[in-house]
Amino acid sequence: MNREADLVLHRARLLTVAPLGDERPRSGPAAGDVGAIADGWVAARDGAIVATGHGLAWQRLELVPRSTVEDVAGRVVMPGLVDPHTHLCYAGERWDEFTARRSGSDYLAILERGGGIHATVRATREATDDDLVAAISERIARAAASGTTTIEVKSGYGLEPEEELRHLRLIARARASAAIDVSPTYLAAHALPPRANGDRRAFLRSAQAALATVAAEHLAEAVDAFVEKGVFETEEVAPLMHEAASVGLARTLHADQLNDTGGAAFAARVEARSADHVSRASAEGLRALEHAGIVAVLLPGSALFVGYPPPDARRFVAHRVPVAIGTDHNPGTSPLEGMPTAIGLAVTMCGLTPHEAIVAATINAAHALGRGARTGAIVEGRRADLVVLDTDDERELAYRLGAPLVRAVFANGRAVSPAS
Amino acid sequence: MNREADLVLHRARLLTVAPLGDERPRSGPAAGDVGAIADGWVAARDGAIVATGHGLAWQRLELVPRSTVEDVAGRVVMPGLVDPHTHLCYAGERWDEFTARRSGSDYLAILERGGGIHATVRATREATDDDLVAAISERIARAAASGTTTIEVKSGYGLEPEEELRHLRLIARARASAAIDVSPTYLAAHALPPRANGDRRAFLRSAQAALATVAAEHLAEAVDAFVEKGVFETEEVAPLMHEAASVGLARTLHADQLNDTGGAAFAARVEARSADHVSRASAEGLRALEHAGIVAVLLPGSALFVGYPPPDARRFVAHRVPVAIGTDHNPGTSPLEGMPTAIGLAVTMCGLTPHEAIVAATINAAHALGRGARTGAIVEGRRADLVVLDTDDERELAYRLGAPLVRAVFANGRAVSPAS
Repeated sequence: MNREADLVLHRARLLTVAPLGDERPRSGPAAGDVGAIADGWVAARDGAIVATGHGLAWQRLELVPRSTVEDVAGRVVMPGLVDPHTHLCYAGERWDEFTARRSGSDYLAILERGGGIHATVRATREATDDDLVAAISERIARAAASGTTTIEVKSGYGLEPEEELRHLRLIARARASAAIDVSPTYLAAHALPPRANGDRRAFLRSAQAALATVAAEHLAEAVDAFVEKGVFETEEVAPLMHEAASVGLARTLHADQLNDTGGAAFAARVEARSADHVSRASAEGLRALEHAGIVAVLLPGSALFVGYPPPDARRFVAHRVPVAIGTDHNPGTSPLEGMPTAIGLAVTMCGLTPHEAIVAATINAAHALGRGARTGAIVEGRRADLVVLDTDDERELAYRLGAPLVRAVFANGRAVSPAS
Repeated sequence: MNREADLVLHRARLLTVAPLGDERPRSGPAAGDVGAIADGWVAARDGAIVATGHGLAWQRLELVPRSTVEDVAGRVVMPGLVDPHTHLCYAGERWDEFTARRSGSDYLAILERGGGIHATVRATREATDDDLVAAISERIARAAASGTTTIEVKSGYGLEPEEELRHLRLIARARASAAIDVSPTYLAAHALPPRANGDRRAFLRSAQAALATVAAEHLAEAVDAFVEKGVFETEEVAPLMHEAASVGLARTLHADQLNDTGGAAFAARVEARSADHVSRASAEGLRALEHAGIVAVLLPGSALFVGYPPPDARRFVAHRVPVAIGTDHNPGTSPLEGMPTAIGLAVTMCGLTPHEAIVAATINAAHALGRGARTGAIVEGRRADLVVLDTDDERELAYRLGAPLVRAVFANGRAVSPAS
């Protein structure tokens, strides 16, 4: 071994979360296999992992000048966290709404009254381009400081396609200067805009028409829709999803969050890369996800803040559906911050074990973003996205809710400034 | 005004949480009154608040040499947080138990099998004095970094009175070097120790006999007991509580946590300063608390981690029972860290408003520790226990769960090092 390295972290409890012989997301009995190596080390060069091992073998690496070599003294080194579901492109807060709302049905009632999302839509429309880019960038930086090295960012508060395209272009600006990897999603059907005058079909046609621009300008990697009772039905958004596929965009869905509307099975039908929320997914829906190998993205934050029953992760593991978790960071239903918080809630509220939650927040979330072979695991050739925890027991990430456990973050081999 | 000051924080959104004409904890319609002052300032000298006001009037203060004068640029300045219920004196973690346990009834089953608390009892008994003092001190320092300036610390993992006295003496050592105010409690009846051979009466007599030493050595301010089905009954611990009163110790109780055993009414009968958990307290219990002016300490952390229904704070507010909140930090049922996390959970899980949660985490928690006239509010003459938030909207403390919002902490007028 005479590979060159510019970053070495050694004497680590190394969680490789390495693939188990294939490149599929983890599910069933393998859902909690974090591939721990005692006295482990990882070496990177130019942003990519070049080698891993244990003991002193790292000393045979050739270190380039000004390399970072750190003895982490038994601390956990794990893959950078992947947040597969956020709505960071918004202006204004809606704190008043939180005190008025105490259940999931209240949420739909507020929506029907033109509150909820529509308040954010107005504030975001009124915000200048520069202010929005600054807000998105600050939220990405805060996520990075808490250990996130890959983050999905949806549009969705524009509603009307023209405004959605503006948001996607602003997300692209924030992405260009971000320290971490940003995966943009066009949330094409979030709610019916007031100007649509109730004409759902015309609105969805206009959203569908925008896909050509989204694809041509590479404004998004995936297209999303909110399939829910009183919002959009599966059959309504089917043409949108099929058009997305035909222009080369991945599909993802807000599905079965408050009611079972067959969203999980629909996600399988349109070959989505993930089905998100899925608190109310039926057994049939779970079987469809398992069969299609689609990642279920569980989002306990909105269950906590809106007050509906959280998804029962044990059902998904029992059905061998691969599970990911995310913050769902948004101003209306899940303002929590940081993947460590999401991990804590996924364990306490959804019933994942700490190791399942770590897999769900790394390799499986990477699969949910089409990056299952590029990040989410500490394996030679992958991006050097790494987190050092301030503990030798990664389970604390799940249980010491609120503790500042993230000691250092490396994205693409470069140190990200720690949480303030 | 020509008062001397050595600490001035100005241009703040100042939450005074000032008393409303009396020195009682807040309840009912006043439960959420935080006494906000726009463009406010607070001045302190030698650890005590000497003046508050708004605008530029602080400039007429006489500043002593080397004073700290900070323009906080519109950020929130609020009273230091008070954590009225923790079990920080322990060794060893019990993470394995968390994955095995998914409900409150499981908790009692684990307890009956000699697991649960007994694992901590063994590990703590085997820990050396120095190691325990170091562990307690580190936990207090972490709490301080997250904004806590007054913290209750219970013994309770000794079980046998001799070992409990050791723990209380070690808590006293940690207290002597702590940057923040520590209120020690003798948790005299937490569980029946194995060596008691099932003789509950003899055990409780021995705990009662230890009270003389506790009082003589000033080892605790209060005496606590875990009143619960299968643990201790109210009538069994009544003599202990009466003896505590007669030697000048305050009373507090773990009451009605998993089952209604009349704990709240019993707390009123023994004139406890707080009744803690009270998830299952009956309407009669709430009326008793209201009548006696006893603070109900809500602890959502254990509800989240053990999986039982959290206390419904709206019931307490409707019954005009003063509410406080705490972390309940302990290795078995509530390992979360920091009062900001407890505030977030009290709002999302128990239904407090953000302002009610701030009152519950400051002045009302101070009352629960017999310090309702000394801290918990930004008022002339009180201890200069202050927190500066990294926001101009204190409601973010409740909603941005997991965000590092505590910018600076002053305990007794001195800066505490920030969270790492």
